[in-house]
Amino acid sequence: MLLLKNVTHNRKTTDILIEGNRFAKIAPDQNIPGVAELNCRNKAILPAFYNLHSHAGMSIFRGLSDDKELFSWLNDDIWPREARLTPEMIYLASKFSILEMIKTGTVFFLDMYFEQQEVLKAAQEMGIRTISALTGLDLFDAAKTTLEKEKIEKYISYPEKDNNGRCTKGLMIHAVYSVSEDLIRYIVRRAREEGLFLTLHASETAKEVEDCRKEHGCTPIEYLDRLGALGPKTIVAHAVHLTDADIALLARKKVPLCSNPVSNYKLASGLFMLQKLQKAGCILTLGTDSMASNNNLSMLEEMKLCALSAKIQAGDATAGNAEDVFAMATRNGAQAVGLDAGIIAEGKLADCLLVDLNNHFLVPDYHLVSNMVYAADSSCIDTVICDGRILMKNHHINGEEKLIAAIKKLSTLFKN
Amino acid sequence: MLLLKNVTHNRKTTDILIEGNRFAKIAPDQNIPGVAELNCRNKAILPAFYNLHSHAGMSIFRGLSDDKELFSWLNDDIWPREARLTPEMIYLASKFSILEMIKTGTVFFLDMYFEQQEVLKAAQEMGIRTISALTGLDLFDAAKTTLEKEKIEKYISYPEKDNNGRCTKGLMIHAVYSVSEDLIRYIVRRAREEGLFLTLHASETAKEVEDCRKEHGCTPIEYLDRLGALGPKTIVAHAVHLTDADIALLARKKVPLCSNPVSNYKLASGLFMLQKLQKAGCILTLGTDSMASNNNLSMLEEMKLCALSAKIQAGDATAGNAEDVFAMATRNGAQAVGLDAGIIAEGKLADCLLVDLNNHFLVPDYHLVSNMVYAADSSCIDTVICDGRILMKNHHINGEEKLIAAIKKLSTLFKN
Repeated sequence: MLLLKNVTHNRKTTDILIEGNRFAKIAPDQNIPGVAELNCRNKAILPAFYNLHSHAGMSIFRGLSDDKELFSWLNDDIWPREARLTPEMIYLASKFSILEMIKTGTVFFLDMYFEQQEVLKAAQEMGIRTISALTGLDLFDAAKTTLEKEKIEKYISYPEKDNNGRCTKGLMIHAVYSVSEDLIRYIVRRAREEGLFLTLHASETAKEVEDCRKEHGCTPIEYLDRLGALGPKTIVAHAVHLTDADIALLARKKVPLCSNPVSNYKLASGLFMLQKLQKAGCILTLGTDSMASNNNLSMLEEMKLCALSAKIQAGDATAGNAEDVFAMATRNGAQAVGLDAGIIAEGKLADCLLVDLNNHFLVPDYHLVSNMVYAADSSCIDTVICDGRILMKNHHINGEEKLIAAIKKLSTLFKN
Repeated sequence: MLLLKNVTHNRKTTDILIEGNRFAKIAPDQNIPGVAELNCRNKAILPAFYNLHSHAGMSIFRGLSDDKELFSWLNDDIWPREARLTPEMIYLASKFSILEMIKTGTVFFLDMYFEQQEVLKAAQEMGIRTISALTGLDLFDAAKTTLEKEKIEKYISYPEKDNNGRCTKGLMIHAVYSVSEDLIRYIVRRAREEGLFLTLHASETAKEVEDCRKEHGCTPIEYLDRLGALGPKTIVAHAVHLTDADIALLARKKVPLCSNPVSNYKLASGLFMLQKLQKAGCILTLGTDSMASNNNLSMLEEMKLCALSAKIQAGDATAGNAEDVFAMATRNGAQAVGLDAGIIAEGKLADCLLVDLNNHFLVPDYHLVSNMVYAADSSCIDTVICDGRILMKNHHINGEEKLIAAIKKLSTLFKN
């Protein structure tokens, strides 16, 4: 049990009792003998962030190669180095990504890269939530398809530690331009059979859509639907280049979309049509993508660009308002991945931030959510609680210095 | 004198001696008896930021009204409250803006609002550099034109304190849609006679350009040129909607342009054509605009959006590269306002940042400038030095708690 004393909640001072991993009671003047208390004077409680698109293992490549065309970036700089990554390196790089997520207020990440058992292990140790999705990627090579299916079966049989369902497995279809129909159908079937969340990249670039039309006579969204891939347990990342028919389909099938505006800008992919998708009734969430295409994992920065980009895209300053974008980063994301979390209320999972109301970015305090979306940076986030446990307090995470030193050392191997 | 010991400069450890307000000697192993030393182990020295467009007095309106159409925002929320601002309030609000600038690494701001003598005073006290430009704005009302001229004369005669030229006066033409030809000509003439820098808003929105064409048969840039307003001492803010002829004119006349991408996005104004302007040889600098349309004064966030927006605008991931955008925020800005600063070199004005190389956002450290543009937030900035004086050390500014408390109190007057 943990008692948050004198915390600001909806502009009032109250106490909040956490029992196990849930908010148990929100009421002032609670005094429970023997219960650990946290003094929250001048701090506001807010939902924490749910990052629905990341590649945690890529943290080791931050700042290595920027401002390049996609192919030259991948071919010259990223792929040759990825070939040198070991599972142990991915474990360490993932822990470092998680450190940055916690520093910036994130308590959940939907991750997809290689060696996802390492990401699962890293998340279990760091105390954060994850769905760690193994990426299926065969480049239309039948021999590779077989190997990928074996990898998927091996991953499915990999034991999840008993952690309250905090860290679970998922599957990923890399994209329609990189995965065969056979493998897509296999991944979709196995995800359904095992009750796993599925995720994929789709309609990220105009070229992807154009190529899909040539190959399959339809858009990536239509093609994925034809293969049974779309539904409420399939999170579609990017979703930049969509037709009206795509949008109607995604809304009707209740498919959560994850926007990654920073990455879409950095790679010059295009602008997410937030206002239009919202009007169509689509489920909208937010993600950072990786440190190699962002270059950080701050959902605060992601929210700001999400809101700003929505306005430019629609030519309308009222598009992408602060409350809606904050919801994308918090309760929409939590709901999309089946978590009973994302709002501060009795009975909900105890995930939250404590933000410092004396931090200059949060002053004046006319509208806290607006300040979080448009003004705040990580310096505002004092404490992060996930599943009832404190992951960061007074801006500090246990063991952070050692982890940062380890990444500095590891990075020397990748300079050239 | 101040000796920065064991500071990382261009990836090497060295010592940097500051004498008076300039960098005097950059060499390792300097030991000078009696000189104050600052231990800079694991900190890198970088140029500080020069913010070429701000309205410091508006800090009191942060978060008050967002996600609105421009006219409703001004008419319903901002103008009625601006009418209640006193000089004392503008002084306090400006100090608070300066606090946030220092926290985020800025040592200079080109400011324009009302009661600019208060901004001058605030900057003098906080130790930052400024050009505090009085805004001329008559709304084509001849009676008001006379009053504005009187205000300008009064401001020109206002004494600058002896502060090494750190805080100086300037003049501003609000915009072609709000200032009469008579007042524009007057401001241009008086600025030239007094040797003052001039600044103005121009070509911010498509409507402004369209209206100017109807009224004057030419673009705002052409109209301003016709009135003699353009030259190397006129900083043009926004410059979003430009014709090819405008661009050629601005390049030929060596007019510094100040991009304000966050504000241009938040008000859905449009995208700055960075790559095109760069190719044309224009002088490019960066500014935050005010807390009411941003909603912070972080040049770190401004650099990131500047780089990202350049890529989306050009449809080219190589546009707006990190080095060029960092130059806009540092040496281009300093040069544009006549400061012998913006780079770390012997003989230059001693303006700089010390950034914490153990901060997670700056790890791995393949490319420090890329990390500053794409990854860093204010938590990376440990120390800020302006004109040889330490303004912030270990993230702390003298008196910050008192100033923040005063703004919280003042803001209660503006809630309704």
